[in-house]
Amino acid sequence: MADLHLKMMRLALAEARKGIGKTAPNPAVGCVIVRNGEVVGTGWHKKAGTPHAEVHALKAAGDKAAGADAYVTLEPCSHFGKTPPCAKALIEARVARVFVAMVDPNPLVSGRGIQMLKDAGIAVEVGLLKEESRELNLPFIKWIQTKLPYVVLKSALTLDGKSATASGDSKWVTSDRARREVHRLRGRLDAIMVGVGTVVKDDPLLTCRVPGGKDPLRVIVDSTLRIPLHAAILGVKSKAETVIATCSCDHAKMEALKAHGVEILTCCESDGRVDLADLFEKLGARGVQSVLLEGGSHLAGAALRAGLIDKCMIFLAPKLVGGAGMGLFAGEGATLMADAIRLEQVRVKRVGVDLLVEGVPVKTKSQNP
Amino acid sequence: MADLHLKMMRLALAEARKGIGKTAPNPAVGCVIVRNGEVVGTGWHKKAGTPHAEVHALKAAGDKAAGADAYVTLEPCSHFGKTPPCAKALIEARVARVFVAMVDPNPLVSGRGIQMLKDAGIAVEVGLLKEESRELNLPFIKWIQTKLPYVVLKSALTLDGKSATASGDSKWVTSDRARREVHRLRGRLDAIMVGVGTVVKDDPLLTCRVPGGKDPLRVIVDSTLRIPLHAAILGVKSKAETVIATCSCDHAKMEALKAHGVEILTCCESDGRVDLADLFEKLGARGVQSVLLEGGSHLAGAALRAGLIDKCMIFLAPKLVGGAGMGLFAGEGATLMADAIRLEQVRVKRVGVDLLVEGVPVKTKSQNP
Repeated sequence: MADLHLKMMRLALAEARKGIGKTAPNPAVGCVIVRNGEVVGTGWHKKAGTPHAEVHALKAAGDKAAGADAYVTLEPCSHFGKTPPCAKALIEARVARVFVAMVDPNPLVSGRGIQMLKDAGIAVEVGLLKEESRELNLPFIKWIQTKLPYVVLKSALTLDGKSATASGDSKWVTSDRARREVHRLRGRLDAIMVGVGTVVKDDPLLTCRVPGGKDPLRVIVDSTLRIPLHAAILGVKSKAETVIATCSCDHAKMEALKAHGVEILTCCESDGRVDLADLFEKLGARGVQSVLLEGGSHLAGAALRAGLIDKCMIFLAPKLVGGAGMGLFAGEGATLMADAIRLEQVRVKRVGVDLLVEGVPVKTKSQNP
Repeated sequence: MADLHLKMMRLALAEARKGIGKTAPNPAVGCVIVRNGEVVGTGWHKKAGTPHAEVHALKAAGDKAAGADAYVTLEPCSHFGKTPPCAKALIEARVARVFVAMVDPNPLVSGRGIQMLKDAGIAVEVGLLKEESRELNLPFIKWIQTKLPYVVLKSALTLDGKSATASGDSKWVTSDRARREVHRLRGRLDAIMVGVGTVVKDDPLLTCRVPGGKDPLRVIVDSTLRIPLHAAILGVKSKAETVIATCSCDHAKMEALKAHGVEILTCCESDGRVDLADLFEKLGARGVQSVLLEGGSHLAGAALRAGLIDKCMIFLAPKLVGGAGMGLFAGEGATLMADAIRLEQVRVKRVGVDLLVEGVPVKTKSQNP
């Protein structure tokens, strides 16, 4: 029996996964309706403002929902938003039991949907595959609880830790396959961020170039507004905007940039540079739940040292530059090896010939005072 | 039937593995005698000068060897060395068939043992699990064919490619578990080599500190003989010798060092430094089949650029120095990313919390002119 529940919740998680990167500002959610051990309806949330997963699944189940078990990856909502509350829909469909992987992380409504179900006499079991469900929506969870975006540092390094040769050449560190994976990642996160040095050096477009992919918001950190007006990124045709974060007061340059259709976001200054904590706060306030930090080394180093990185995704190419070259982080590093920043929850997978190492930097008090 | 042969050869390989690191200058070899699908004898070569694998296995099989199948990981020897030829022993035991994983790589005798068996009317099958057998004895195979040692570069890096912080601190990059693995590795290879910079900085002992481990020959590359006379390595009590490779002519320092019981190996000079190709040739000539190159970055860089490294073993610790620090290779690296040295046959495994990435550098013509 426990096996059946696990199996069905896994199915609900698989449904939820279909929505990743498409549901912002809502989380990705999946639902499965099961009657006498048989799946009678499945559903996933496709897009904010459209019906939630439960509604799709109940609709598919029709009359069979009465007396059935519902498996939902996130607590059903209890409030009228753009759509009616799902807890109510489950009650009206007269399901017998609801399995909820995790409670709603929104502190304002957490637990209310479950209470509504219980009040209606429906048995509710909470916590089945909770960690798997959390992982689907890490950005949403961080943002709903802190209004700060979830920051993913992505980098591509050779096995000897070089992102470019000493001459600055970086085309290419990793294989096609890993670079496609990065484009896919861009499509799943809300914003992509680079330092102006990367814009000057690589002249990137920062778009998501996989079929059907959604461009993220492009954020360029440019403390002194030194971005050249001929930069390719200023000419990108995309539904997503380009934002330049700065602490410069060069109004003439601001106007010239605005004429290219970009937005200027003035941030607090810290040691002559954009204060990244302030920038992330401003992005969070405008609903950005996730940021992909793609470089360069000054920006990455500043973000790491400020304890602002939630996850590292480091692609390692099985090659050696064999001497001097550019590294992942510029600036001052740890003085003692014992003070290096540890990664937890480390995962390794092969992506074509390359490796992808993922991990969560352990934030110490000294980094996040 | 094919399954049985594979299974038995795997068993022979497992036997052979027991001898790795103990049989020099002989290869590690295993043998299994099988009669009617049943193992009647197993054996492995334990130490040069003592009986070969076949002799142990035949002895264990006794009368049951007659008409049996023998599985040997390496072609049985055909010549009287310190022990009588194994091909003869198999013939005298009247085995019916011999499965040989790989032919003897020694060009002087290769194929002769097989011929001896065939001439005696014994059926011989060659090539079963050949690659697995090769891998057991890569150092022996390279050395017997070229008289050059097999060179393994070992390093420990943080995920951002640092072997030490900017201040030079490197205690410790990897976990206990990975460091124990390195000690085990030292016990399996014939020699361990470091640059004098590492001796000055870390004052290492370069011994194999695992129970029952065998110390390797210690080789210090010290072009100008700047090793301090108080270096810990000069006082190591060990059965294995310490050799200082130099192109200096400072006879006074040489005498002082010899008084500490170390040997001075004078090598050709190349750009003011010890010519590594010459050094490896000299080590090979004295029977050193394998060298573990443990650093530092100048020595590693020079060896890599000269195309002298046969295998890289890079331990990656899931931590980030987060800024400047020391890298794996000093000196000039590739100018273009496209010219970085690729690794092939890449393998990744977890060693405690760390990763071990192994690979074979692809040698291009420009490196090995």
